[in-house]
Amino acid sequence: MALIVQKYGGTSVGSIERIRNVAKRIARYHREGHQLVVVPSAMAGETNRLLALAKELTTEPNPRELDVVAATGEQVTIGLLAITLTAMGLKAKSYTGGQVQVLTDSAFTKARILNIDETPMRRDLADGTIVIVAGFQGVDVDGNITTLGRGGSDTSAVALAAALNADECQIYTDVDGVYTTDPRIVPEARRLDTITFEEMLELASQGSKVLQIRSVEFAGKYNVKLRVLSSFEDPESTSPGTLITYEEDETMEQAIISGIAFNRDEAKISLMGVDDRPGIAYAILGPIAAANIDVDMIVQNIGASGHTDFSFTVNRNEYKRALDVLNGEKDKTFHAREIIGDNRIAKVSVVGIGMRSHVGLAAKMFKALAGEGINIQMISTSEIKIAVVIDEKYLELAVRVLHKAFELEKNGEVA
Amino acid sequence: MALIVQKYGGTSVGSIERIRNVAKRIARYHREGHQLVVVPSAMAGETNRLLALAKELTTEPNPRELDVVAATGEQVTIGLLAITLTAMGLKAKSYTGGQVQVLTDSAFTKARILNIDETPMRRDLADGTIVIVAGFQGVDVDGNITTLGRGGSDTSAVALAAALNADECQIYTDVDGVYTTDPRIVPEARRLDTITFEEMLELASQGSKVLQIRSVEFAGKYNVKLRVLSSFEDPESTSPGTLITYEEDETMEQAIISGIAFNRDEAKISLMGVDDRPGIAYAILGPIAAANIDVDMIVQNIGASGHTDFSFTVNRNEYKRALDVLNGEKDKTFHAREIIGDNRIAKVSVVGIGMRSHVGLAAKMFKALAGEGINIQMISTSEIKIAVVIDEKYLELAVRVLHKAFELEKNGEVA
Repeated sequence: MALIVQKYGGTSVGSIERIRNVAKRIARYHREGHQLVVVPSAMAGETNRLLALAKELTTEPNPRELDVVAATGEQVTIGLLAITLTAMGLKAKSYTGGQVQVLTDSAFTKARILNIDETPMRRDLADGTIVIVAGFQGVDVDGNITTLGRGGSDTSAVALAAALNADECQIYTDVDGVYTTDPRIVPEARRLDTITFEEMLELASQGSKVLQIRSVEFAGKYNVKLRVLSSFEDPESTSPGTLITYEEDETMEQAIISGIAFNRDEAKISLMGVDDRPGIAYAILGPIAAANIDVDMIVQNIGASGHTDFSFTVNRNEYKRALDVLNGEKDKTFHAREIIGDNRIAKVSVVGIGMRSHVGLAAKMFKALAGEGINIQMISTSEIKIAVVIDEKYLELAVRVLHKAFELEKNGEVA
Repeated sequence: MALIVQKYGGTSVGSIERIRNVAKRIARYHREGHQLVVVPSAMAGETNRLLALAKELTTEPNPRELDVVAATGEQVTIGLLAITLTAMGLKAKSYTGGQVQVLTDSAFTKARILNIDETPMRRDLADGTIVIVAGFQGVDVDGNITTLGRGGSDTSAVALAAALNADECQIYTDVDGVYTTDPRIVPEARRLDTITFEEMLELASQGSKVLQIRSVEFAGKYNVKLRVLSSFEDPESTSPGTLITYEEDETMEQAIISGIAFNRDEAKISLMGVDDRPGIAYAILGPIAAANIDVDMIVQNIGASGHTDFSFTVNRNEYKRALDVLNGEKDKTFHAREIIGDNRIAKVSVVGIGMRSHVGLAAKMFKALAGEGINIQMISTSEIKIAVVIDEKYLELAVRVLHKAFELEKNGEVA
């Protein structure tokens, strides 16, 4: 018997039929003797419908009141799920974020969880009751309703699992696990049985949209065993999904490269011939940050004769605005021979915990891309990732070539 | 400067445009220097949509969880209204029933209000903040979400007005007050400037669906000044609507008859030749009550030679079931020569506080109906009401004839 937290995403509870299916899976786990805490999202489309109502009233809705509206989506789902389970003859009880309670700070629309009161849930679980907690929401110290921001239900589930010291936190979504890359691009893409937290973080931030990044960090910090599973399979299915583990636990079986991530939401901006002096990066990126534009990759080459080239990427939606900001600041906070940009780029990343101890992986990546004549425009590396920026039109080709080069379609260790 | 509680019904907040209109009216009262507590219902159709989702899952949803779902309708409206007011530059703050808090008993789906904590509202009002409280909902002593049942937002508003000792409780709806009768049937029907609580109770229970009965009782009990107004008029309109008063306050101006109510939702059942003995009414109506069928009018004639006739009315939807119950019990708990019924009847009532002190009103009513050849099938009277059952086909004719006979189109006292 284990204590399991199960999180169901919006599409998993997107209709009456799907809610019934989720209830059947919960009933199966309950029958098998597990204690269950279930965290559903709002029904698919519901949060967008609610936010659209608010946006129709004003472009900048009061954040406290926006949370009052947005939190209702999950409240409907917990009630409907509890109704389904009780109608099946099971004991089930729903809790809003305020009822549990999930205490957060007062940063409306993007609150952070501070504490969870596990007492009422423990009492219910001991009693054989299935506990259903609204994801995405909490309450601040003054009793105001807060929400955690988009994808916050993942964070809710992980925080509940941490508070209850659960044996496992299962994230149900519309895919049955984490893949070596997107199967729509590489049909041979393989579901990973395990992946480390750090790899998952790199994959998530690089565009594999399976889990919200914050929830993965949270799970790592509090040592929560996280598993990604599909809610679209038969409720009796015992497919194991993908288990997200700590490196230390399973290094023996760990592949060097776990996957290929990619992202076509970015645009590149380069400043040619800027002064190679202390403070130049701040002079360029300070105004960008002040304009509330997020920067992803940053690359600065070694300068020659007192000048250097400085490049970075931003979200494609912010591309024009970022260029405007820089052209406005040019010759004020910095000098540059030329500011150029390209919004038809893509980023491709090779991610693997094994990079730490294996050399030659970058060379292998560059060789594979060169073999197809794909020019690399920017390179950025971390402990467990090599990311390159290429022309967008080569994206699918690059992913397929790299997947093959690293033999990701095969199980087990490769080099 | 007054403290005013304003309640807005579902159609009054049924769209973004209507919410804007409501906000404009609130802003006007705020500008005039009044302190405001606003109680909106769910957007029209929303509560039905939520209940339909639950009913799709099971015919008998768990009541606690049904309330969790149903309470979201009002939560959305308070947030949207607060967003609109803050976008207009006003200070506004929303409260759910649990946040205020509105303490109720634990009778889910039909809870009763026990207490309201006025402290946070007082603080906000003193600060110039417009307070917006979700109608229809509360919280029990264990923190469970409860709802007050259909039309409960009226009750919420009256209870808030009582707790805050408000100067007035304004009920905004899609009509601009209480009329002498339905203007669709009698074009000369006149809006009443005032009506007593007791008359309002009779009119409401007789089918004038302006206010929920429970809220009127509540207002009477706690001495709350209630006014019915239209939210569909221009926000700057100063139409006074209909003020609901205490008899004692304004007897001088009180008309003897205030209105004609009617109802075509009923059916009549008569048991002919039953024993005229103690306990016979219970023998007949006991099984009806056990089958959970509500009875409205009950008439028993004086018996002759040890037998009597016994008649009562039930909701038309329950007509067949009531007949089945009686035929099943006949010759067991009671004897009857014959059980007959009619589901093509209508009830017409003349209501007026002046009946207490004026005689001859019944005769006047019966004469008016006789003049049109309308046969009276049943008669039932209370202190301030005379109700008759007639053939349904004469309903409109009867209402028009009575409206004219009592000169209700004219202002002031008549006899």
